[in-house]
Amino acid sequence: MGTTSITVAEDPRVLLLLRRADDALILGHRLSEWTGHAPLLEEELALANMALDLIGQARALYQEAGAVTGHTEDQLVYLRDVREWRNCLLVEQPNGDFAATIVRQVLYSAYADLFWRAACGSGDAALAAIAGKAEKECAYHLRHAAEWLVRLGDGTAESRRRAQAAVDVLWPYAGELFATDAADSVMIEAGVIPDPVTLRDGWNATIDAALARATLTRPAEGWSQSGGRVGLHSEHLGHLLAELQFLQRSHPGARW
Amino acid sequence: MGTTSITVAEDPRVLLLLRRADDALILGHRLSEWTGHAPLLEEELALANMALDLIGQARALYQEAGAVTGHTEDQLVYLRDVREWRNCLLVEQPNGDFAATIVRQVLYSAYADLFWRAACGSGDAALAAIAGKAEKECAYHLRHAAEWLVRLGDGTAESRRRAQAAVDVLWPYAGELFATDAADSVMIEAGVIPDPVTLRDGWNATIDAALARATLTRPAEGWSQSGGRVGLHSEHLGHLLAELQFLQRSHPGARW
Repeated sequence: MGTTSITVAEDPRVLLLLRRADDALILGHRLSEWTGHAPLLEEELALANMALDLIGQARALYQEAGAVTGHTEDQLVYLRDVREWRNCLLVEQPNGDFAATIVRQVLYSAYADLFWRAACGSGDAALAAIAGKAEKECAYHLRHAAEWLVRLGDGTAESRRRAQAAVDVLWPYAGELFATDAADSVMIEAGVIPDPVTLRDGWNATIDAALARATLTRPAEGWSQSGGRVGLHSEHLGHLLAELQFLQRSHPGARW
Repeated sequence: MGTTSITVAEDPRVLLLLRRADDALILGHRLSEWTGHAPLLEEELALANMALDLIGQARALYQEAGAVTGHTEDQLVYLRDVREWRNCLLVEQPNGDFAATIVRQVLYSAYADLFWRAACGSGDAALAAIAGKAEKECAYHLRHAAEWLVRLGDGTAESRRRAQAAVDVLWPYAGELFATDAADSVMIEAGVIPDPVTLRDGWNATIDAALARATLTRPAEGWSQSGGRVGLHSEHLGHLLAELQFLQRSHPGARW
């Protein structure tokens, strides 16, 4: 493994794989940060299991991207500077309190479940295979997080206040999940991925039902945060990568 | 969940369950500390999976102990002061470098695999059921860690130096795995657990074979560290518990 930062050519298929992989890896890393801090031992294991699912999805996607670009999964994870990351801003948002972690998980999983379900029919066989496993996992993550949302939203006054605050703060980051650019359009027209626009109604229905069960209020639509898909990230991702990449950056190859 | 620290009556069977549970939980927590810091993405998942196995074993054992003492698993984990913990000193030793983590895992897993295999025939049906699952998991942990030991010991001069240093530093903590007291004797005579003395030859054979394959030297027998089984711990456990118990201690019940 080399010691210098790498950049990845922005072939539409590679970009697509990196965007999905980075979403899964960064969210998986965020969930794993709960280890040793979760409110209950059972939930500690649930969060860790979801993290493992997501990091496993990311590995499969990085391997597929790396087969094209000639990089290993470790090079793609440990040697890209922050501007080279293509995850949406939602997944890099800090864990905050437990309610914020759960709301972030609901918003993302409701999208990922629909995306992967549609991608099971992708004309790209490698992506379809990854989608089949990812869809089952994301469907479970959504159920688990939505159940917690009900317990929090329909719980004590304090848990309800925190859950609504998390919904309000994270809402502007959900729009980026549905944004597309020229590279996405190429992949959509080639039948590789679904057009996210076609997922929006299903996502709205899922989220509205989850919020209703949790007796929480859907925020009004307004300004939507974006930039992650082209490498414009919040300061939070820089801190996360500093931790994630520290070993490889300071001991290249970690081969001793 | 109450807000105050709890103590647990030292019935021999409860003590036995707590000693096994605390070993598994503390070692699982140590392994989970690698998340975001492992040398390779694949190994990050392997360490996290082993952590989940161990924390799962701990949960089953705490539930069994709590059924007797009237505590929940969360009370047993989050509300015991450091002097109430019954794990051996080996598992609470800091991760150190990757070589130290691997050596600690080899020493513990070689013991746990033998212990749980023998305990599959326990006269205590609940313990026998836990043993059946734990044995398979610990056998895998041993294989995985022993393979890494070979790669490190038979690798570069630096990796070999680090692996031997880890063996030398951790060796004095292995003896406590085989120590017994009056409470253990009651359980051994009742046919609930194997006498650890009967496991020693098997452990020696496993460790000698692993060290030989890794071209590492077995240290001379000498002073053996102990105290963990009666609550006399190194300062490291206090720091670990401060992190693990912070949320519950500062927000009792974490119910908001």
